[in-house]
Amino acid sequence: MHILILNGPNLNLLGRREPGIYGAQTFEAYLDTLRRAYPQVQIDYYQSNHEGDLIDRIHLAGYGTDANLSNHLSENDGSNSSTPFDGIILNAGAYTHTSIALHDAIKAIPIPVIEVHISNVHLREEFRQHSYISPVAHGIVVGFGIDGYRLALEGLLNMLAR
Amino acid sequence: MHILILNGPNLNLLGRREPGIYGAQTFEAYLDTLRRAYPQVQIDYYQSNHEGDLIDRIHLAGYGTDANLSNHLSENDGSNSSTPFDGIILNAGAYTHTSIALHDAIKAIPIPVIEVHISNVHLREEFRQHSYISPVAHGIVVGFGIDGYRLALEGLLNMLAR
Amino acid sequence: MHILILNGPNLNLLGRREPGIYGAQTFEAYLDTLRRAYPQVQIDYYQSNHEGDLIDRIHLAGYGTDANLSNHLSENDGSNSSTPFDGIILNAGAYTHTSIALHDAIKAIPIPVIEVHISNVHLREEFRQHSYISPVAHGIVVGFGIDGYRLALEGLLNMLAR
Amino acid sequence: MHILILNGPNLNLLGRREPGIYGAQTFEAYLDTLRRAYPQVQIDYYQSNHEGDLIDRIHLAGYGTDANLSNHLSENDGSNSSTPFDGIILNAGAYTHTSIALHDAIKAIPIPVIEVHISNVHLREEFRQHSYISPVAHGIVVGFGIDGYRLALEGLLNMLAR
Amino acid sequence: MHILILNGPNLNLLGRREPGIYGAQTFEAYLDTLRRAYPQVQIDYYQSNHEGDLIDRIHLAGYGTDANLSNHLSENDGSNSSTPFDGIILNAGAYTHTSIALHDAIKAIPIPVIEVHISNVHLREEFRQHSYISPVAHGIVVGFGIDGYRLALEGLLNMLAR
Amino acid sequence: MHILILNGPNLNLLGRREPGIYGAQTFEAYLDTLRRAYPQVQIDYYQSNHEGDLIDRIHLAGYGTDANLSNHLSENDGSNSSTPFDGIILNAGAYTHTSIALHDAIKAIPIPVIEVHISNVHLREEFRQHSYISPVAHGIVVGFGIDGYRLALEGLLNMLAR
Amino acid sequence: MHILILNGPNLNLLGRREPGIYGAQTFEAYLDTLRRAYPQVQIDYYQSNHEGDLIDRIHLAGYGTDANLSNHLSENDGSNSSTPFDGIILNAGAYTHTSIALHDAIKAIPIPVIEVHISNVHLREEFRQHSYISPVAHGIVVGFGIDGYRLALEGLLNMLAR
Amino acid sequence: MHILILNGPNLNLLGRREPGIYGAQTFEAYLDTLRRAYPQVQIDYYQSNHEGDLIDRIHLAGYGTDANLSNHLSENDGSNSSTPFDGIILNAGAYTHTSIALHDAIKAIPIPVIEVHISNVHLREEFRQHSYISPVAHGIVVGFGIDGYRLALEGLLNMLAR
Amino acid sequence: MHILILNGPNLNLLGRREPGIYGAQTFEAYLDTLRRAYPQVQIDYYQSNHEGDLIDRIHLAGYGTDANLSNHLSENDGSNSSTPFDGIILNAGAYTHTSIALHDAIKAIPIPVIEVHISNVHLREEFRQHSYISPVAHGIVVGFGIDGYRLALEGLLNMLAR
Amino acid sequence: MHILILNGPNLNLLGRREPGIYGAQTFEAYLDTLRRAYPQVQIDYYQSNHEGDLIDRIHLAGYGTDANLSNHLSENDGSNSSTPFDGIILNAGAYTHTSIALHDAIKAIPIPVIEVHISNVHLREEFRQHSYISPVAHGIVVGFGIDGYRLALEGLLNMLAR
Amino acid sequence: MHILILNGPNLNLLGRREPGIYGAQTFEAYLDTLRRAYPQVQIDYYQSNHEGDLIDRIHLAGYGTDANLSNHLSENDGSNSSTPFDGIILNAGAYTHTSIALHDAIKAIPIPVIEVHISNVHLREEFRQHSYISPVAHGIVVGFGIDGYRLALEGLLNMLAR
Amino acid sequence: MHILILNGPNLNLLGRREPGIYGAQTFEAYLDTLRRAYPQVQIDYYQSNHEGDLIDRIHLAGYGTDANLSNHLSENDGSNSSTPFDGIILNAGAYTHTSIALHDAIKAIPIPVIEVHISNVHLREEFRQHSYISPVAHGIVVGFGIDGYRLALEGLLNMLAR
Repeated sequence: MHILILNGPNLNLLGRREPGIYGAQTFEAYLDTLRRAYPQVQIDYYQSNHEGDLIDRIHLAGYGTDANLSNHLSENDGSNSSTPFDGIILNAGAYTHTSIALHDAIKAIPIPVIEVHISNVHLREEFRQHSYISPVAHGIVVGFGIDGYRLALEGLLNMLAR
Repeated sequence: MHILILNGPNLNLLGRREPGIYGAQTFEAYLDTLRRAYPQVQIDYYQSNHEGDLIDRIHLAGYGTDANLSNHLSENDGSNSSTPFDGIILNAGAYTHTSIALHDAIKAIPIPVIEVHISNVHLREEFRQHSYISPVAHGIVVGFGIDGYRLALEGLLNMLAR
Repeated sequence: MHILILNGPNLNLLGRREPGIYGAQTFEAYLDTLRRAYPQVQIDYYQSNHEGDLIDRIHLAGYGTDANLSNHLSENDGSNSSTPFDGIILNAGAYTHTSIALHDAIKAIPIPVIEVHISNVHLREEFRQHSYISPVAHGIVVGFGIDGYRLALEGLLNMLAR
Repeated sequence: MHILILNGPNLNLLGRREPGIYGAQTFEAYLDTLRRAYPQVQIDYYQSNHEGDLIDRIHLAGYGTDANLSNHLSENDGSNSSTPFDGIILNAGAYTHTSIALHDAIKAIPIPVIEVHISNVHLREEFRQHSYISPVAHGIVVGFGIDGYRLALEGLLNMLAR
Repeated sequence: MHILILNGPNLNLLGRREPGIYGAQTFEAYLDTLRRAYPQVQIDYYQSNHEGDLIDRIHLAGYGTDANLSNHLSENDGSNSSTPFDGIILNAGAYTHTSIALHDAIKAIPIPVIEVHISNVHLREEFRQHSYISPVAHGIVVGFGIDGYRLALEGLLNMLAR
Repeated sequence: MHILILNGPNLNLLGRREPGIYGAQTFEAYLDTLRRAYPQVQIDYYQSNHEGDLIDRIHLAGYGTDANLSNHLSENDGSNSSTPFDGIILNAGAYTHTSIALHDAIKAIPIPVIEVHISNVHLREEFRQHSYISPVAHGIVVGFGIDGYRLALEGLLNMLAR
Repeated sequence: MHILILNGPNLNLLGRREPGIYGAQTFEAYLDTLRRAYPQVQIDYYQSNHEGDLIDRIHLAGYGTDANLSNHLSENDGSNSSTPFDGIILNAGAYTHTSIALHDAIKAIPIPVIEVHISNVHLREEFRQHSYISPVAHGIVVGFGIDGYRLALEGLLNMLAR
Repeated sequence: MHILILNGPNLNLLGRREPGIYGAQTFEAYLDTLRRAYPQVQIDYYQSNHEGDLIDRIHLAGYGTDANLSNHLSENDGSNSSTPFDGIILNAGAYTHTSIALHDAIKAIPIPVIEVHISNVHLREEFRQHSYISPVAHGIVVGFGIDGYRLALEGLLNMLAR
Repeated sequence: MHILILNGPNLNLLGRREPGIYGAQTFEAYLDTLRRAYPQVQIDYYQSNHEGDLIDRIHLAGYGTDANLSNHLSENDGSNSSTPFDGIILNAGAYTHTSIALHDAIKAIPIPVIEVHISNVHLREEFRQHSYISPVAHGIVVGFGIDGYRLALEGLLNMLAR
Repeated sequence: MHILILNGPNLNLLGRREPGIYGAQTFEAYLDTLRRAYPQVQIDYYQSNHEGDLIDRIHLAGYGTDANLSNHLSENDGSNSSTPFDGIILNAGAYTHTSIALHDAIKAIPIPVIEVHISNVHLREEFRQHSYISPVAHGIVVGFGIDGYRLALEGLLNMLAR
Repeated sequence: MHILILNGPNLNLLGRREPGIYGAQTFEAYLDTLRRAYPQVQIDYYQSNHEGDLIDRIHLAGYGTDANLSNHLSENDGSNSSTPFDGIILNAGAYTHTSIALHDAIKAIPIPVIEVHISNVHLREEFRQHSYISPVAHGIVVGFGIDGYRLALEGLLNMLAR
Repeated sequence: MHILILNGPNLNLLGRREPGIYGAQTFEAYLDTLRRAYPQVQIDYYQSNHEGDLIDRIHLAGYGTDANLSNHLSENDGSNSSTPFDGIILNAGAYTHTSIALHDAIKAIPIPVIEVHISNVHLREEFRQHSYISPVAHGIVVGFGIDGYRLALEGLLNMLAR
């Protein structure tokens, strides 16, 4: 099993930014715990503040080297997997609410994507009430804090096992 | 641990109604599997098509006999628990989108509530895009099919353990 | 042929409430006339001010005892039919405009439902201009006064005959 | 009894256009059956794709030669009735949703108009959800297929008999 | 003088739920004080979390046994008054904002209804800014805390005295 | 001076239709009075219930035989003026609120158009609050009853005199 | 005949402000011409940038000294007429679009009010498309430039003569 | 106790304007009755059609001479109280729906304000459904006719007594 | 190959109307050039300001004499083709934005329709931003001036060749 | 250089009202500091709670005695400047969001106006998100506290120097 | 002639992603055909999933090395043209609907841009109905499949030839 | 003092793009003047057309090397400051209106951000009326041309000095 966890804008600041909402743990620290709990799964991790990077990574996870990405991207990321993944756990951050391009990228790949949000977005501003990811997600986990990634993984593995 | 799973309108028809969307298994059959997987948890189950019944049950789960419910209700339900529960897993069905009264009931009790939806509501009609439950839920699980109840239970137990 | 006429909130007051709009005849009196005009059809009648009761009855009409309704309901209604009906004529009153749960109940059963309104709702308040019943109804009859139930029955019988 | 059935745009294609929705029978064939079933009623029929023609015809049905129509119209239609009709059954097709002029024409005449739609418009595009005809119609029949014209005639005759 | 105070969903929790907003006194305790202050008035009290129950009670208060309610309801409430009341003081809680059926019930009875809200709803969520009760209420009292019931009673008595 | 008064749909019924709103005088009778009051002006009059006819006439008034109208129209109207008019007084009736094509026709001609409404449209339905004619009109007269045509003529003559 | 012309905010700048739109003539100069053309009418004129002043003046015109205005206003305006006027010609300027209080003032008096706008407001910003004056005006004249006051007077005199 | 009753635009016409809605009694006559019923309370009264006057008066009631009002106002009103009041009963009339400045004025003072409306505004135009006063009012009384001022006073005194 | 170019309202004025936007060439002159450039295609041309005419012509192009059009139309157009065309190039002018009936007509025929606009409608008024034609068009060409018809023909021929 | 600082409603309470948002300093104290920092500029100051007063003052600043203001205003303000100013710094307070008349006043004068807000209005209620002043302002300064007036003056002087 | 074809997000997957909608041919294969058909035109091609990349390329096409792009970009793209192009054919994919920055980039350059969409976006989700590109495009081609690029090129060449 | 000026998309074209709106000076030339005027402040400058780059830079300015940015970014920008800045002046260009991710980035850092716009965005398209930056900005300067950056710096320094 080969799973990609993909985090979007500002999530590099986890542990620093608004710890009352997002917790004081960095994502890297949490990732260690998660990997130890699921030794049978290979969990890759990528974070970017760039919408285009997230799209490129979704394409790579879905098609590997068949994704036909332009040269300059692969120069920057020599270590990309050349074969597709089995699924993606995606927290697209603020791009959740604005990116039709991410919506299209998810719809364009043949593997399932689980949407995760750490905080309960429904308690926040009106403009966070709509998600372009949800209509193309295979499952959605919201508001459980950082434990949401584990629940997403649980659900994704069960889904792939069927 | 004492958990209430509360299902709203039309969910008594699970296994009969639109099996392409909701699966062909009855909820009672699924409940057996779930109880066996979590023997350390006492899982109560209640389903009703009546908005008022769901509110009454949320009050009972939150306050037990202190909920000050009117007589005629307790006549119908002699076996109600007289002590509060530790948490609720709620699939409010169509009332999710219309019931401010359920919103208020959840806000009025001191125990956490997890919102579950079997199908991905974001793929359906516009009027299913808004939830009155979400702003008062402690966690939300959407679109994993009936496996969503297990993920909700996982998340709720982890939440209660902290 | 076994048909259920189901009336929603405030329709128990027919003959008393706003007779200028709804007429001065009680529904029970009208029902006698209707039954005499269609002796070959068994017409059952049920009215309730409770949204949940209407949902329960739609389930019963669609599935009979297979509807998996909770115990306390059937205790109250010992005389329920144990076999499904052939069709329903539904005037959901004010729930027409607010109840997604009724919408779902109709969609969940395998028999046709005809929507009836006594007055022309399009002449009334803005909030009566939208119906959650119409998209799942097999036919709609509006504004003919109490004669609308007869037209609905005519249309339903013709539909079942095909 | 003298009744006008008036069909609006694209209804000349009945039997050809989208037979899955509208049936494979032409309206002329259906009209024969209807006339035979109601021998005591004189049923006239007119169809036009022109909004102005439909308005002219509603005026003629309501006032006969008193309608003060301009010359060029009556040149085209020498056989117009010089006396008013008793009622109109109107399927205004797409003009239902856009024509305030038809709304005004119906309001301007002293005879009742029944609105008919063959398919269930509430299952179709958002722009078909509003009718300018409904607030001035004396009765509305929707979604019964071509049988709706018969139900409309039934309701209209009953209405005129009162 | 015979007045009904009717409280809607979640108001059974007064004194327990959010005491910062709703106060720490139960409604039963307050009712004693109110009855002592107005010994010349017979004040009945009923609370329910069920929309249908509230409608039934409004009908009973308006028509007594003439309300034509179905059997199963009167079985549960043997002590209902068989004669109409003089007026109703109604706090419909969350149903204020969603129930057209309550709106219709109030419009259908011949006695005045005063709308009360304990807190200032205009300070709360957008969805609490609209009331379906207000257009059919004979008077509205908002934001005076539990003292609002006394002001409503004062206004209602003055209104009945005229 | 050569002025065209152009009346839209349902205005042929003036004197018959809703005399409480529109008066009991036919337009032809009023026209006589108007022509006598302004002997120095040649006033032509045309009414049609057809949107296309109104557009054709606006073109004819603006360009005469240069309007490049298709043959079948001029066959019907042999008496059309072959030279342009000096201005138009237009009461487009219900097309006021729906016809972008009339808006374009007015914008396309080099002579001024005055918009007239007999009744005060701002007192009527919401859908009559917007006019596609107003942004291209050189003056607007509303609510003076049939006297509005005289005021429009006064204003138009003054405008042409400058 | 005693008519009040009432001009609202910024109209004191006529002749100075945007002469391309409003003309280069001051209103006082125009008023002389108008009075000479209608010697049989007593035309009073008042302009204010204060919404409250305009309301006070409408009250005075409608009721004279019976208007029950507070003292400090009449101190400022010793020359007010003590008897009601026959009609008002009102150009409320920008208050047209924002003042419900002016709407109420006009509705509260027993004499007719004609609404005038110099420019075609329908060609300007969206927020100038709605008028609170129009639904209570007895006639509306828009877009004829300063000649609109004369047309309004013509229409008002005709109206009063009936 | 020192209370200010403050009435907004057009309320000087009480007893004259639309007596069917507002009653035939002048406010001054009503005030006498009210003062006699509450001899222990000093009730001041002020009415103005000017939004600015109402704001000035709210400042004066809240801060007395500390309100830092510009000179020209105090010249007009020599008799202003130099010390703050205990509370305000405000019927802001049409400014209720348009004045954010009044909203701010109420929020800026340290004494409670009760909002009163004589008629049931929820039965009137859409633009009267929103109040800028309500979110900053300490209590709201609507639809009791002129008796609403007494109820407001009752509620205010009770509030101040706590 | 038999292609119909169909132009809607006001397009008869091409070359006269707003030449800055639409060019100074008449459509007839342009048509000559086009026909010479595509000698292998028979290009018919029809223009009308009447919505109903455009619908009739679309029916004729789609079905020929099978279109079941009423008599009076074919009287006017004796030269209509009795066999269907291969495709339509449609510039519906202002009806683009208002005509659901044209939308339905296009959906009802079995041949492809290409939508053309001469100017860039997206630079113009808000009400020109929506097209009822686009969802049923097989291709759309906007903003290339009169050259757009050639591009539409190019695309249509390529489409028919596949 | 002659600059007018013009403050709108409730700003007389600066230093008293909500000091957490607006600071504890009176504007008069701040004005002293500002004048000392810019000795080469003559800074006049005017505050009013009256929309009409603000408009009058903008006219006076723009045109001096040419502003054609009515008599009663100049009686109140004998010390008005008879010559125009060079620019205005305007904090229109709540009128920012409601006054089209202020918008028009600014557009009508030939000198630049800078809009200032002390607090960040974008953090407050939805109804404070729109400004009628901004589209006619030559510069906007928001959220710098009382220092914003200095920045506005800096920008205005720089603008005038160009 | 030097033309840039610029493709936006997810268009690298052409031939892989939803071939039912977008066809099974890669864009590179199609480009060969196109170049052979127009040997006189130098056609450059660039695709990116990054909004910023597309903006950079539009600047480069419009200004060449004068575009003042930051260093890190030109490091990645050594082969950029140092001289401006003659025109751009842009399929901005999902950024069409969300990117005001692309809108601004197109407006900022002196060469024409043609907008292309392969599928008919008007048949898809509501959020694809609005284009930020269209108001600044010189021509728009929609729904012809991949043949749309050829039509765009045809139109662009014709445009440049004038 | 260490300040970052951050410019968003298309601002690299300053001096080239629409000089009537944005001026003919390049930003680099202006920056020299600004640095000379404030020698005590170290002013860094960065421009990018990439939303992600702007987010990265905001993180770097707020946290220095603690920002946990991914490797590939720091490879491109070797000269980044390893210590936080004291404040940011941000002109986010078109991303102002679409980027929730920038909103979040600003909220996530502990240093103040001033929002600047060169032109008066309130005079432009509707879609430029909303800013996602404003609710998280510490100050906003709009419409002063390029001098706005100096005013922002003035305000920021004053803010930091307190």
